[in-house]
Amino acid sequence: MTNPTACLLIIGNEVLSGRTRDANLQYLATRLGEIGIPLREARVIPDVPEEIIEAVNACRAKYDHVFTTGGIGPTHDDITSECVARAFGVPWEVHEESRAIMVADYARRQPPVELNAARLRMATLPRGAVPIRSAETTAPGFSMGNVHVMAGVPRIMRAMFEALAPTLAGGRPVISRTVHAHGVFEGQIADGLSAIQARYPDLDLGSYPYYWQSSGGVALVAKGTDAAEVEAAAQEMFALLARFGEAQRGEPEP
Amino acid sequence: MTNPTACLLIIGNEVLSGRTRDANLQYLATRLGEIGIPLREARVIPDVPEEIIEAVNACRAKYDHVFTTGGIGPTHDDITSECVARAFGVPWEVHEESRAIMVADYARRQPPVELNAARLRMATLPRGAVPIRSAETTAPGFSMGNVHVMAGVPRIMRAMFEALAPTLAGGRPVISRTVHAHGVFEGQIADGLSAIQARYPDLDLGSYPYYWQSSGGVALVAKGTDAAEVEAAAQEMFALLARFGEAQRGEPEP
Repeated sequence: MTNPTACLLIIGNEVLSGRTRDANLQYLATRLGEIGIPLREARVIPDVPEEIIEAVNACRAKYDHVFTTGGIGPTHDDITSECVARAFGVPWEVHEESRAIMVADYARRQPPVELNAARLRMATLPRGAVPIRSAETTAPGFSMGNVHVMAGVPRIMRAMFEALAPTLAGGRPVISRTVHAHGVFEGQIADGLSAIQARYPDLDLGSYPYYWQSSGGVALVAKGTDAAEVEAAAQEMFALLARFGEAQRGEPEP
Repeated sequence: MTNPTACLLIIGNEVLSGRTRDANLQYLATRLGEIGIPLREARVIPDVPEEIIEAVNACRAKYDHVFTTGGIGPTHDDITSECVARAFGVPWEVHEESRAIMVADYARRQPPVELNAARLRMATLPRGAVPIRSAETTAPGFSMGNVHVMAGVPRIMRAMFEALAPTLAGGRPVISRTVHAHGVFEGQIADGLSAIQARYPDLDLGSYPYYWQSSGGVALVAKGTDAAEVEAAAQEMFALLARFGEAQRGEPEP
């Protein structure tokens, strides 16, 4: 059984200008691995309609799921929702249930808040979209086919993802084991690691040098969906590192 | 005059699995803005040859510059250099000058280090590539046409980028001004901000809500290459915020 695959579109000029450091990729990458829908690609794209439409259509054809973050607020640069409608070729229209929920929420506030034209944009969805509701805000995310549209603010994105996750048909969780050794360097273990990779073609083996002040070492990571294979490969990687230094299990810690 | 454009390819399974948090995007986004080669897209892609080749060829056709990070070490999963050669349709061969530099470096170490087959991969470049040398390592990055290949380790990536940057023909620096107001929310100022954006079509105006504990506000950012226009738009944004709360210049600070 092959796991379903995912792609992430991070939408926003602020990430491409360096103003904002993305805080959603690592969270979603980790959570998607845990539920067995591994992330295969991520793209950071600008608030430009043609770019968003092109990326949505390219990625929804290539991957089982597309997640987007950013661009669903009330301001002129929040164009994700409208662009998803255009990508699917459907009208972008007020979602009455969402509008009613937002009206009720705004009326309860002290002082009451008006659902003006800008805020109404947040209740305007592609026809056929299924809202993603969260406890963080009454302005919804939504799923349109295999495209899942979420807020960019990390707290709200996480709430929306966790509301959505139980509805996704995941695969086998991706399991990971790490071994490392201080004072051992990639150039020493590269050949031995290639040989292990060749014996475990279904696993993804990675080698990551690390540096602290004047010292460092290498961390080797085995990933896959078969726990016994991952464990066996990790033991071979441990033995490889032990030929050159003091091998340890787990991630290195400063 | 239009500025040249840039795309970043972050190559590595470790970022897509969530193990490693990318630390290069924000640095490069900021520096590229400063030298007038704004970043228009970034992609995180896996250590899969076909994916790397396809992304390199798509992006080098679309943007003036493509920067890559990751995948130029000595291990089996370091395949960026070979893939760039395949993308350009040129041989991937030992670069004699780089080999000689690495041999001399390794011979000087105590104890001396052998330039084994794995390490020699780091001196193997696409035919026609121009090495990028840095003080951090004798294993080079390189430029192949408009594709600039750098290490993934942030310290080494930065040294390579700063060695490369003076050779790039940049454009006008992207200038940015921020104003913000606590207790003001996007839904209030969205219409006014749209009107300002309409008066300054060459600028990129952004609106970013922020949250701290139970309070928050909104930051408005104007970006562009014309300093006078950016300043004028920032003054209008300041006046807009001042209608709803206490407007301040600069980024909000917790």
